[in-house]
Amino acid sequence: MTALPPALDRSSALVRDETSALRGLRDQFLVPEGVVYLDGNSLGAMPRTVPERISRAVTEEWGGGLISSWNSADWINLSRRVAGKIATIIGVGGADVHVGDSTSVTLFKTMVAACRMRPERGTIVMETSTFPTDGYVAAGVASLLGLELRWCDPSQPAASLDEDVALLALTHVDFRTGAMFDMGSVTRAAHEAGALMLWDLCHSAGAVSVELSEHGVDFAVGCSYKYLNGGPGSPAYVYVAPQHQRGLDQPITGWMGHARPFDMEREYVPVDGVGRMASGTPPVLALTALDAALDVFGGIDHPTLRAASLSLTDYFIDLVDARLGDQLAVITPREHARRGSQVSLRHEHAYGVVQALIERGVVGDFRSPDVARFGFAPCYVSHVDVYDAVDHLVSVMAREEFARPSYAIRNAVT
Amino acid sequence: MTALPPALDRSSALVRDETSALRGLRDQFLVPEGVVYLDGNSLGAMPRTVPERISRAVTEEWGGGLISSWNSADWINLSRRVAGKIATIIGVGGADVHVGDSTSVTLFKTMVAACRMRPERGTIVMETSTFPTDGYVAAGVASLLGLELRWCDPSQPAASLDEDVALLALTHVDFRTGAMFDMGSVTRAAHEAGALMLWDLCHSAGAVSVELSEHGVDFAVGCSYKYLNGGPGSPAYVYVAPQHQRGLDQPITGWMGHARPFDMEREYVPVDGVGRMASGTPPVLALTALDAALDVFGGIDHPTLRAASLSLTDYFIDLVDARLGDQLAVITPREHARRGSQVSLRHEHAYGVVQALIERGVVGDFRSPDVARFGFAPCYVSHVDVYDAVDHLVSVMAREEFARPSYAIRNAVT
Repeated sequence: MTALPPALDRSSALVRDETSALRGLRDQFLVPEGVVYLDGNSLGAMPRTVPERISRAVTEEWGGGLISSWNSADWINLSRRVAGKIATIIGVGGADVHVGDSTSVTLFKTMVAACRMRPERGTIVMETSTFPTDGYVAAGVASLLGLELRWCDPSQPAASLDEDVALLALTHVDFRTGAMFDMGSVTRAAHEAGALMLWDLCHSAGAVSVELSEHGVDFAVGCSYKYLNGGPGSPAYVYVAPQHQRGLDQPITGWMGHARPFDMEREYVPVDGVGRMASGTPPVLALTALDAALDVFGGIDHPTLRAASLSLTDYFIDLVDARLGDQLAVITPREHARRGSQVSLRHEHAYGVVQALIERGVVGDFRSPDVARFGFAPCYVSHVDVYDAVDHLVSVMAREEFARPSYAIRNAVT
Repeated sequence: MTALPPALDRSSALVRDETSALRGLRDQFLVPEGVVYLDGNSLGAMPRTVPERISRAVTEEWGGGLISSWNSADWINLSRRVAGKIATIIGVGGADVHVGDSTSVTLFKTMVAACRMRPERGTIVMETSTFPTDGYVAAGVASLLGLELRWCDPSQPAASLDEDVALLALTHVDFRTGAMFDMGSVTRAAHEAGALMLWDLCHSAGAVSVELSEHGVDFAVGCSYKYLNGGPGSPAYVYVAPQHQRGLDQPITGWMGHARPFDMEREYVPVDGVGRMASGTPPVLALTALDAALDVFGGIDHPTLRAASLSLTDYFIDLVDARLGDQLAVITPREHARRGSQVSLRHEHAYGVVQALIERGVVGDFRSPDVARFGFAPCYVSHVDVYDAVDHLVSVMAREEFARPSYAIRNAVT
């Protein structure tokens, strides 16, 4: 093995961590001993404040306060408080975000509402590499509204835009490759074609800069259980640009989107503002966990978060290049402006590579057919984690641990 | 005050509790000291197993197990396990129930799927007294699909059925009056008219007998935070009769309803069975609380639960008749077959009555314009609670505590 240049060795990782603007933040998370967790882009780690907060919500608020907690514990405004915290992270006003349903349901409501704003147009455009549920939901919306779902080449979405396109819906960071769209130029292209722009922020918010207002984005939807660390299946959010809120017509007109839900009127009268994106009773326990989790972002500005993310992915790429460049292909863009907060490696035995790493305590994940994916949540992943992960990866490759018979079935299927 | 007949006095309440088939079950709930809780039809009390279960899910499964808990803690089948428990309570097969979204979202998906099964028909019928969100959602569905929403007289829903009706959607127990529909005869009438039948079970499941299979019901939707005690905003469930599951076409086609969600295919291929009602990632923490909460129903059969509920509401009505019959009108049907598990009283100062009772520790609720509503969750409400509640009510009425100036504004508004 070639000796590693001093600028990349483990002591340099320690120095990087000690001088990071986010040093100390990791202590706010429970990261299990012996685990290098590089799967925060599937499920974020648990902020340490969550257990006590949810325990209080269960035992004191629900158990002790019972129905009165809608007022005394202010459950009725919990969704709004959580939305305000997410708004800060995605660079928009606190009154322009709603949180409450699953990502798929939120995408559905948002896509229908958006398409209803362009009734003279009949096409939704998505990229072929979108996260599957986005495509499934869009197909359902298209079928329901009698629209065409058009697939575009992710390398040139603008080429698929024409005067029939109502909505361009793209995933900001690709879940397989970690490639990131240029939000500004793509949004401009959509607007120039007269289309509305919807960004899926599932793989970006909380790890990369997201400046929706600055780029004039119309709609954005994201989950909260990846880089926002809200817990398994925590509720999704939607951003609606202020100019679109008046007259916004989403299809699931439930009582929580009513102007006066407790007056129990016969007619549905949507509340002013983004609150009309609400449908049913808010999931109080899940929102409580998310509310606590989001506090770790208090006081962190976008450039700091982004710099920390890039420092981690740069270091990972440099180490892979130096130590494994002849064995594994980095398929994530090297250009900062086109990279999210994950790095994906291609290998024909990617499934086995990921499994062998997990057995060594390095948790990444596999994406069919041949991608090993590593997410770098800047809030709690350290440069030492990165060093150790690559060190294990070197061993996995040297010993061909990926070729164990128990991994063969999955490799064969894919 | 007239002396109470011995058969109704407080010592008789103690005897009723001691001889109840559900005695001891109350100990499985946290019912705060000094509170008579008659609002379990808004938010059920907390089963004592919930805090420990949710704490384990948060700290051990999420915090410690991280992404691996989808398998190691079997999160991936959590929704199915919870659905199986609910199925037992509503008298259907375990594989015919799905749980996951809010009640409003679940109603939306179910109504669209049902109407798509009767494409040649153009009308949804609902009763004028339905819970508001049901009506709002139906109006949204009607607008989306180009259908008519027809309002029927709740005393004779069958009179509004004709050959254009695709779906009759009724609330099994009325949230204001506690009146209950005869599920069998109404379902038969819908079927005779060629319509499908959807029951909203929010105010019945967990307190009254619900025999969906026996009555040939097509669809049912219910929340889990009232008599099922799942916690604030806990997820709703849907029942789909086995013969309708094949070809069922619900509109929010998210990845969790896919036949192979983790293969991440481009095309949406719905899974066989009721699982295709799923859309997004399941809300694991909320489902965990619900999973624990449902265990209190283990081993209780329908007739036992129903007998306990009727014993409580009978006793409440008898006490109100005997002690307050000249001051408050019981608007809930006295006939067992037409009564849910709540009793509603009408009084022009109903808002003040409810507030004065709450100050005394007796928690019921107010429904506009003049209804004081009391729910009797048979799992944890005792006959002594009933006696004490009426005793406080007698004092509130005798002292005119309902007329305090601070209650005047709400009374005036309604």
